[in-house]
Amino acid sequence: MTTAAERTLDEHTLDRIDAWWRAANYLSVGQIYLLDNPLLRRPLSRDDIKPRLLGHWGTTPGLNFIYAHLNRVIRERDLNTLFVAGPGHGGPGVVAGAYLDGTYSELYSAIDRSEDGLRRLFRQFSFPGGIPSHAAPQTPGSIHEGGELGYALSHAYGAAFDNPDLLVAAVVGDGEAETGPLATAWHSNKFLNPEQDGVVLPILHLNGYKIANPTVLARIPESELLDLMRGYGYTPYIVSGAFDIEDPRAVHERMAATLDEILDRIAEIKAAAAAGELDGRPAWPMLILRTPKGWTCPAEIDGHPAENNWRSHQVPLANARDTEAHTRLLESWLASYRPEELFDEQGRPIELITGLAPEGERRMSANPVSNGGLLRRDLRLPDFRDYAVDVPAPGETVAEATRVLGEWLRDVMIANPHDFRLFGPDEIASNRLQAVFETTSKQWNAGYLPIDADNHLAPTGRAMEVLSEHQCQGWLEGYLLTGRHGVFTSYEAFIHIVDSMFNQHAKWLKSAGEVSWRRPVASLNYLLSSHVWRQDHNGASHQDPGFIDHVVNKKADVVRVYLPFDANTLLSTYDHCLRSVDYVNVVVAGKQPAPNWLTMEEAIAHCTRGIGIFPWAGTEVEGEEPDVVLGCAGDIPTLETLAAADILRRRLPDLKVRVVNVVDLMRLQSEGEHPHGLNDREYDALFTADKPVIFAYHGYPWLIHRLTYRRNGHANLHVRGYKEEGTTTTPFDMVMLNDLDRYHLVIDVIDRVPGLAAREAELRQEMQDARLRARQYTREHGEDIPEVAEWTWAGGDRTTRFDTTGGDND
Amino acid sequence: MTTAAERTLDEHTLDRIDAWWRAANYLSVGQIYLLDNPLLRRPLSRDDIKPRLLGHWGTTPGLNFIYAHLNRVIRERDLNTLFVAGPGHGGPGVVAGAYLDGTYSELYSAIDRSEDGLRRLFRQFSFPGGIPSHAAPQTPGSIHEGGELGYALSHAYGAAFDNPDLLVAAVVGDGEAETGPLATAWHSNKFLNPEQDGVVLPILHLNGYKIANPTVLARIPESELLDLMRGYGYTPYIVSGAFDIEDPRAVHERMAATLDEILDRIAEIKAAAAAGELDGRPAWPMLILRTPKGWTCPAEIDGHPAENNWRSHQVPLANARDTEAHTRLLESWLASYRPEELFDEQGRPIELITGLAPEGERRMSANPVSNGGLLRRDLRLPDFRDYAVDVPAPGETVAEATRVLGEWLRDVMIANPHDFRLFGPDEIASNRLQAVFETTSKQWNAGYLPIDADNHLAPTGRAMEVLSEHQCQGWLEGYLLTGRHGVFTSYEAFIHIVDSMFNQHAKWLKSAGEVSWRRPVASLNYLLSSHVWRQDHNGASHQDPGFIDHVVNKKADVVRVYLPFDANTLLSTYDHCLRSVDYVNVVVAGKQPAPNWLTMEEAIAHCTRGIGIFPWAGTEVEGEEPDVVLGCAGDIPTLETLAAADILRRRLPDLKVRVVNVVDLMRLQSEGEHPHGLNDREYDALFTADKPVIFAYHGYPWLIHRLTYRRNGHANLHVRGYKEEGTTTTPFDMVMLNDLDRYHLVIDVIDRVPGLAAREAELRQEMQDARLRARQYTREHGEDIPEVAEWTWAGGDRTTRFDTTGGDND
Repeated sequence: MTTAAERTLDEHTLDRIDAWWRAANYLSVGQIYLLDNPLLRRPLSRDDIKPRLLGHWGTTPGLNFIYAHLNRVIRERDLNTLFVAGPGHGGPGVVAGAYLDGTYSELYSAIDRSEDGLRRLFRQFSFPGGIPSHAAPQTPGSIHEGGELGYALSHAYGAAFDNPDLLVAAVVGDGEAETGPLATAWHSNKFLNPEQDGVVLPILHLNGYKIANPTVLARIPESELLDLMRGYGYTPYIVSGAFDIEDPRAVHERMAATLDEILDRIAEIKAAAAAGELDGRPAWPMLILRTPKGWTCPAEIDGHPAENNWRSHQVPLANARDTEAHTRLLESWLASYRPEELFDEQGRPIELITGLAPEGERRMSANPVSNGGLLRRDLRLPDFRDYAVDVPAPGETVAEATRVLGEWLRDVMIANPHDFRLFGPDEIASNRLQAVFETTSKQWNAGYLPIDADNHLAPTGRAMEVLSEHQCQGWLEGYLLTGRHGVFTSYEAFIHIVDSMFNQHAKWLKSAGEVSWRRPVASLNYLLSSHVWRQDHNGASHQDPGFIDHVVNKKADVVRVYLPFDANTLLSTYDHCLRSVDYVNVVVAGKQPAPNWLTMEEAIAHCTRGIGIFPWAGTEVEGEEPDVVLGCAGDIPTLETLAAADILRRRLPDLKVRVVNVVDLMRLQSEGEHPHGLNDREYDALFTADKPVIFAYHGYPWLIHRLTYRRNGHANLHVRGYKEEGTTTTPFDMVMLNDLDRYHLVIDVIDRVPGLAAREAELRQEMQDARLRARQYTREHGEDIPEVAEWTWAGGDRTTRFDTTGGDND
Repeated sequence: MTTAAERTLDEHTLDRIDAWWRAANYLSVGQIYLLDNPLLRRPLSRDDIKPRLLGHWGTTPGLNFIYAHLNRVIRERDLNTLFVAGPGHGGPGVVAGAYLDGTYSELYSAIDRSEDGLRRLFRQFSFPGGIPSHAAPQTPGSIHEGGELGYALSHAYGAAFDNPDLLVAAVVGDGEAETGPLATAWHSNKFLNPEQDGVVLPILHLNGYKIANPTVLARIPESELLDLMRGYGYTPYIVSGAFDIEDPRAVHERMAATLDEILDRIAEIKAAAAAGELDGRPAWPMLILRTPKGWTCPAEIDGHPAENNWRSHQVPLANARDTEAHTRLLESWLASYRPEELFDEQGRPIELITGLAPEGERRMSANPVSNGGLLRRDLRLPDFRDYAVDVPAPGETVAEATRVLGEWLRDVMIANPHDFRLFGPDEIASNRLQAVFETTSKQWNAGYLPIDADNHLAPTGRAMEVLSEHQCQGWLEGYLLTGRHGVFTSYEAFIHIVDSMFNQHAKWLKSAGEVSWRRPVASLNYLLSSHVWRQDHNGASHQDPGFIDHVVNKKADVVRVYLPFDANTLLSTYDHCLRSVDYVNVVVAGKQPAPNWLTMEEAIAHCTRGIGIFPWAGTEVEGEEPDVVLGCAGDIPTLETLAAADILRRRLPDLKVRVVNVVDLMRLQSEGEHPHGLNDREYDALFTADKPVIFAYHGYPWLIHRLTYRRNGHANLHVRGYKEEGTTTTPFDMVMLNDLDRYHLVIDVIDRVPGLAAREAELRQEMQDARLRARQYTREHGEDIPEVAEWTWAGGDRTTRFDTTGGDND
């Protein structure tokens, strides 16, 4: 090994790397602790130290070590490299790298290369009005927020897809490997194509500890660890780092030699792939790097071990300001990096250091893929109107909305063969988007059988299916943040699996919007189907419409929620979503055969407004206020509402009924709360200021109240929705279980419109009897009662029915 | 191998196993398809078949195969075995097993052993008014809902902890191994003690496919798969099952021989552990079982492969009722099991089959651990009042609430050494519960270093720390559902990682409550700390108080949310939680030094009511309504509210201010919505019917509106809370960023109380100036302005301060 290392590194280069590493470590410690005296040109005093010491040291020297070594190979091999710091709480290190690269000063001119710039660099870190303690949107070169651990490899692979020349160095550390998402993300190598896609180099940084405990992978026998990595399909390489007594130079040599070996191997694989000579899936290299946690900090503090211990995870010298002994220890720690050798008289890093930085966009802090908006091009979208279903009259034709969307998405893929992908947890076909397989395959590199000709699998493809919502979300985020476009389709209930990932992405978008040099990225588009009302095969466990509730807690500037209720409204909605930037678009849509209500022209007009009256469905009299408003949002609630309106039209023809449908849920909120919010005048023009409103909503009913509580007439708003009642039963039984059915809506109208309850007791009773009859019929026959299953919309002449035999897969 | 198999199985036993398997498969197909003609005693007709065919066949024959073989070894070795079906959508199989065991008829007398009983067994499955399609609370022997895949191994290990004689056979199948939670759950073996805990036997059931795609682990080379399992720390055994041409007997022999090998090895390990002769962590056996998906169903349907293909995942003959050819195919499929050999004249399974079932509670369907409430004993709880902090006057003393709770939890552990555990994702100490380490250790079996004497690690222990919220939640669920007690402590923001797991558990509790033979289990208790307002080290990525919003969408019967605001209220709340059953209790509490407001007697009275007036904090006049109500919930909002009340008392002494604090959030809801809800009279007595209410809330402000929108005076309710503004900054800057600070609350009062805005313009300006000054001071000094950090509560004589140097770990 030593011989290889000697070949790899000349003395000067070794000095460069070590100087970079020392400088980056110095800058990191400076950021955590110092307010002033940035070059230690006078004895460190209490006032030089921040009053609140906030941040994380433990992972940082390891990140700096990796960054320094990557710089060498990037320069020598002209590599196009993205750096993903899984332990992004090592923010001081990532910032230090960008500062030594020069990028930081280019983007933030006040943080220039001077003693004063250093002072500002140090002061701003984790300081009120400054920058966050983690890698964040403010950090040049980063697409990966620190904080919640688990997504480094998913993000890395997402960045690598369709970036054939990119190398993503993805550090996994500080226990991240124990998280579920990371534990499955290793398998991403089965979904990567060596020719079409870039390369991910996972670096498992084993520094021994997480917050307050050892990590599992640091403690299992090395033979098990190697088996595990081979089992994941990688060729593991190990570098074991210096533990205090050892000269860091020896570690530098080992690291450099191993990196060269790894990159030689990667180059061979890429060359073989380019020549078409690759036989099956390659065992890509991965690196296991063992270094001490908190490497180079004081060995002991107050009698407890610090370096190579979990105690260095955060701020090892918590009392540096208030305890003289700690102040001195901090001073000697800082001095141990020999800053006087690293910075010149003006406080500029010396050429020995800056000369290691790659040039221009080759710098990891300046790689354009890390500011994906720079690279994003608008999608070429086929005209969605060409995919419209024919709607001679409301309810006269039937379609599966997502299947129709699938045809358009197929052609979106054809028109955008390099920067659009579809992600799904084994649910693309179940959610009826299988038309995409006419033009693309599911990318698969895990092994083939002869039968796979039938399975739409191929080594290249633009559909990504893995039974992990975490992977789908992580890949898509990585793909979007590096400038591309995509859609994530999932069962509605199980999108909650990525609630926390959504949080982080929404927060990223919010903060990125405040960073002047970040350019807009494509929106993250969800298509949620197999929704709460039609989980025919699965019942209660698959019923949860609460992702919408979760999403609307995030910044209004960032989130959009749409509930298109038929094929044409879904097409119109999705065209809008794929044109948007910097949002999270949540679209919930049905996949079962269902009536089409609007022509494409009507759908476009309705979706453009996001909310509107269905004049054909109600019985209002022009120029007069209605007696009651039936509101609805979502396909099943819209169907039940229209059926209720139908009953009312036939049975109470004098009652003035208005039907209002909501596609863009955020229209309900006040204009002060959300940019899409209606003003009160507009709201009243739709819902009236004082008439009863019976609102049938797709999800948990309380959300509608939360969105409208400030509206006029809110006391008259009565919402029906999912209230956690459900099992494996028929579609109509599901709505009855939750009091969302047409008969119950009619009862609600009778109960809420003044005077009606007394007058229409008979109709009320009839509705109750109809519910009972439907319930009994279903219990007896196992399907919905024909009067519902083959209900005819009075406005047309066609029988519109629930397809009660259609089911979802799984 | 054949020789071993011959030794293992005599001809008769082999016949038993095969007959059981055929019978279970027959019963499974019958459940999915048949309404009538359960024994095929006349030709199958259209009307014998269900109109809606719902369920999952693909995984089922494999589950039945495993179940049959386990029966043999349970009988021969008198094993205490729990069966966990990861692919619980194979519900027909799990039900079939319980029916052949006899348990099903014991618990559901109408489903007896007769032709009529069979008819009812078949009809009820996935039928309106019947049972769900998945394994569910209704399923005897199950603790694991089918539906969302990913938690089989976590549940299994949770069941095994502290059950030294239990064997948990945990099937992982249908792609579950691709999920993140499952991918990390293999590592649970590093947290299991061979002497104190039971054994988990993971059975990786590779049937090749998930819903519509091959699975990764079924397609990687076997050498990789074996490396992976060895890397996870197991000794893998493989049984490759018959693919159509092969005689199933040969597979039975291989399966039996391998199971015997595995169980011999497990017995050796257990014996060595009991004798204290075990050297380190054993490489527990695991089984890889390769069988065809949909095994034994028609090989082809309509020209497409069915058996050994993803097409058999759900219902292979979807048109069995309406297509004559399919009806005949179904008939011959059913006949292929030779039901006439399996059931007697009365429709009872023959002795050859029933004789394979273990006796009584040894039956996997009747194991008491699967109905944990049967085994649950009340915790012996030390008197929490003995742990009270001294509060001579409100705000006079300071404590870290969770640290105080930790002392009580320590003694809960001492008093309950076998059935109480604490789970945390590397956050027990960070959340200040480290007192528990005075009596217990973190259970750890992943390898030791000399330094670990310092780390509270031991091969046995009642604290479970792994950097995976999924594992913590899954282990705890398994532990609770098998009759024990526990607490999960997490950072507030990252509990969203288990949103979907919480959903499934809440749904399980709801359904289990409707199953007559299920006994109550201990509540699932969350202790969320490191909350949104005090993420000093981490900022935005760690700020999300929305888990409460997520939780309250679930059935009111099941969920409880508490926001104790100091040490004594936290003690009182948690005592209540640990005594409760069948709930999910969400408790959010602070860990930073904070003033204590109530004596223990006051805390008990306040927590018993869940909501109440702080007479010492307000300025109301007895017998008169206040001018304004300041509501608060959560520690930081309570502090700011009291500080605002303090300003008002000093500056507007004539203003009648009432302070109302809410600990039990569900008290705000209407009594019709939640069992804890106040009635309107009680609500008005606290908040008045028409006075302005300024409510400072811990989380997203909209939740308070969602809970109170039907209340009198809701239009006068003004809520402040977290609105997604935050970064790494000081505690007071955090509340200012979200307009929750004392000064802003005073401004809100001035703006809302009629007449005050005009009269008190000067005070209003002063408050705005105070905010500006505080902001500027913080930007300059990096800490909170002294007038806030050392604010003195007017009612006492002690300085109460934010500990702005205290930080969380990570």
